[in-house]
Amino acid sequence: MHADIVVLPGDGIGPEVTAAAVEVLRAVGRRYGHAFGFHEHLIGGAAIDATGEPLPAATLEAARRADAVLLGAVGGPKWSDPKAAVRPEQGLLAIRKALGLYANLRPVAPHPAALGASPVKPHLLTGVDLMVVRELTGGIYFGEKTRTATTASDLCEYDVGEIERVVRRACTLARSRRGKLTSVDKANVLETSRLWRETTTRVVAREFPDIQLEHQLVDSMAMHLLSRPREYDVIVTENMFGDILTDEASMLAGSLGLLPSASLGEVARHAGAARDATDGSRSATIGLYEPIHGSAPDIAGRGIANPYAAILSGALLLRHSLGLEDEADCIEKAVSAVLDAGVFTADLAASGRAVSTREATEAVIEQLQ
Amino acid sequence: MHADIVVLPGDGIGPEVTAAAVEVLRAVGRRYGHAFGFHEHLIGGAAIDATGEPLPAATLEAARRADAVLLGAVGGPKWSDPKAAVRPEQGLLAIRKALGLYANLRPVAPHPAALGASPVKPHLLTGVDLMVVRELTGGIYFGEKTRTATTASDLCEYDVGEIERVVRRACTLARSRRGKLTSVDKANVLETSRLWRETTTRVVAREFPDIQLEHQLVDSMAMHLLSRPREYDVIVTENMFGDILTDEASMLAGSLGLLPSASLGEVARHAGAARDATDGSRSATIGLYEPIHGSAPDIAGRGIANPYAAILSGALLLRHSLGLEDEADCIEKAVSAVLDAGVFTADLAASGRAVSTREATEAVIEQLQ
Ligand SMILES: CC(C)[C@H](C(=O)O)[C@@H](O)C(=O)O
Ligand SMILES: CC(C)[C@H](C(=O)O)[C@@H](O)C(=O)O
Repeated sequence: MHADIVVLPGDGIGPEVTAAAVEVLRAVGRRYGHAFGFHEHLIGGAAIDATGEPLPAATLEAARRADAVLLGAVGGPKWSDPKAAVRPEQGLLAIRKALGLYANLRPVAPHPAALGASPVKPHLLTGVDLMVVRELTGGIYFGEKTRTATTASDLCEYDVGEIERVVRRACTLARSRRGKLTSVDKANVLETSRLWRETTTRVVAREFPDIQLEHQLVDSMAMHLLSRPREYDVIVTENMFGDILTDEASMLAGSLGLLPSASLGEVARHAGAARDATDGSRSATIGLYEPIHGSAPDIAGRGIANPYAAILSGALLLRHSLGLEDEADCIEKAVSAVLDAGVFTADLAASGRAVSTREATEAVIEQLQ
Repeated sequence: MHADIVVLPGDGIGPEVTAAAVEVLRAVGRRYGHAFGFHEHLIGGAAIDATGEPLPAATLEAARRADAVLLGAVGGPKWSDPKAAVRPEQGLLAIRKALGLYANLRPVAPHPAALGASPVKPHLLTGVDLMVVRELTGGIYFGEKTRTATTASDLCEYDVGEIERVVRRACTLARSRRGKLTSVDKANVLETSRLWRETTTRVVAREFPDIQLEHQLVDSMAMHLLSRPREYDVIVTENMFGDILTDEASMLAGSLGLLPSASLGEVARHAGAARDATDGSRSATIGLYEPIHGSAPDIAGRGIANPYAAILSGALLLRHSLGLEDEADCIEKAVSAVLDAGVFTADLAASGRAVSTREATEAVIEQLQ
């Protein structure tokens, strides 16, 4: 197959980890006879420096025309004056919104070899295999904001349609997994959470009666994610709660540096593409793929960033946007094998030798079967 | 001294744990020659059942006239229909707001004997001693809410004065501790967080130049709380982030059942009271004390709830509202001694025999020196 992939390296370690992911994708392409074209564009702080805007029109245009988008990370101290008129993060929020990427999938399945790096006791982690589906284009992130010299406000809004579509996607995923859905809200305080809870209950009862649904308050969830992570299968929640809970959940996996994510919209792009194995839908959807870690300015440019999350994001891209299930598996198995072999970057190596970004990437490529 | 304490047992295990705390406070009173009067009033679901309202006027009046308020917990499945017009939690939110309890202090210092119950690896927990100061009467909890058949909204608002007062209280606490303050926000997305960050920076620079201030994004904080809990001293944050982060932090201590909280306002109540040792202020302030755990309906009425958090909330009451530092220490040391002796309720006893609420309470009373 031929596919055009837009690459948005962004800031900090973004360029280093996307370069690693692209190398791995090229290698997989060679092995399976695909012609992937990679097209770099600006986003975030790098885009602000070059054009004054965090999401230049050319970047958005290219993303719209592409088959998929691979992103590194945005932000850094250089652009983080709270009074700045434009901020790198606006680029990320704007592209999510513009492409309609309402469902952010964040799988967390701790790899046995990396448990040493987790703050959580290993016996709690064996068998953990959960998937957070975070609503990504609504809530307090996108509601009206106001500011005066002495006051500020952010509006959190949801409508039924926004909740339904992300819950449906989470249910479809749960069906292809263990059939459990945990919906997280703060229904004892927030009106948006009460709408969230009612809507989720109704969608599951009417359309997914085979799914086992439970509701959790976000504060309890922050505990149970640590005390009984094995019990969860698919977790669906609104934008802000998803942001906090997925970073917390990353600690189960030992390092943020291991966690990929897929941000998906509704539009069918490749009607002819192979069946999307993860969510069971017939056609792949437009998607943006990014590690869940940030731009890590403290280690940027030193060649020591963990590339696995970006490489695994490449695997999600193959699966969800191109329908290339075998090729995605191939990458995931290779990363798993190098972790088994103890090829650890500094974030994972409790003690002992840590490899560079380049060494880690080469180790993955060598393992591609 | 004579002091009038209003007791609000609330729902679920609330009555069991407040009864335990009252017994311990009576015992301390006898030992030190204080006359504590205890006056029970209704709140939450119990109040809805009896009066139709989650915070009856008589309860609020009694609280206003009291020297301090001790609360159990509110809520339960009986009252948790999302469409219900009145909810138990409204009683708790209303009393916090009506008494102006803007600073919720949640200390987390894992007890060595309870580390077995924590999901976090023990070597990360030794030496952890942090205090979360959660803003309690502002933010998305109290902003305007709207609801239609298909939409809902919650407004998050802060003004400079609300931020300043809670930051000042956190700084004063930090001064009496290790001099470090971590302010948590989501300044890369929220306007309220940008106001929070600017205000915190200014208050510390102008009024507390001796305090070492760092800013953390809430998603990073959810990770660092687990990966490097020892690095934190005082953490100050807005209402919703504080709710989530303190429940997460409770896992460091092994169980929610060990964590007390103090909710404090500004009004000086006992100008003549002893110096408040924790926050260094001269006069005690009006305060409400409650365990951070909920009403745990699943174990209510079985006599097995962990009473330590409620008992320790009694200690905070003595310290912050009555200025009785020695008496507060006496309770804290007794709880510490029974934990050392392995007197564990079911939530703490990984295996082996668990004691009842009554046995745990008697063990504490026996240890009072
Ligand atoms: C950079 C920031 C705006 C972003 C978010 O909060 O969504 C990030 O934390 C993430 O989780 O992708
Ligand atoms: C019961 C609920 C309204 C409350 C809150 O969210 O503040 C509780 O979770 C707490 O933390 O005290």
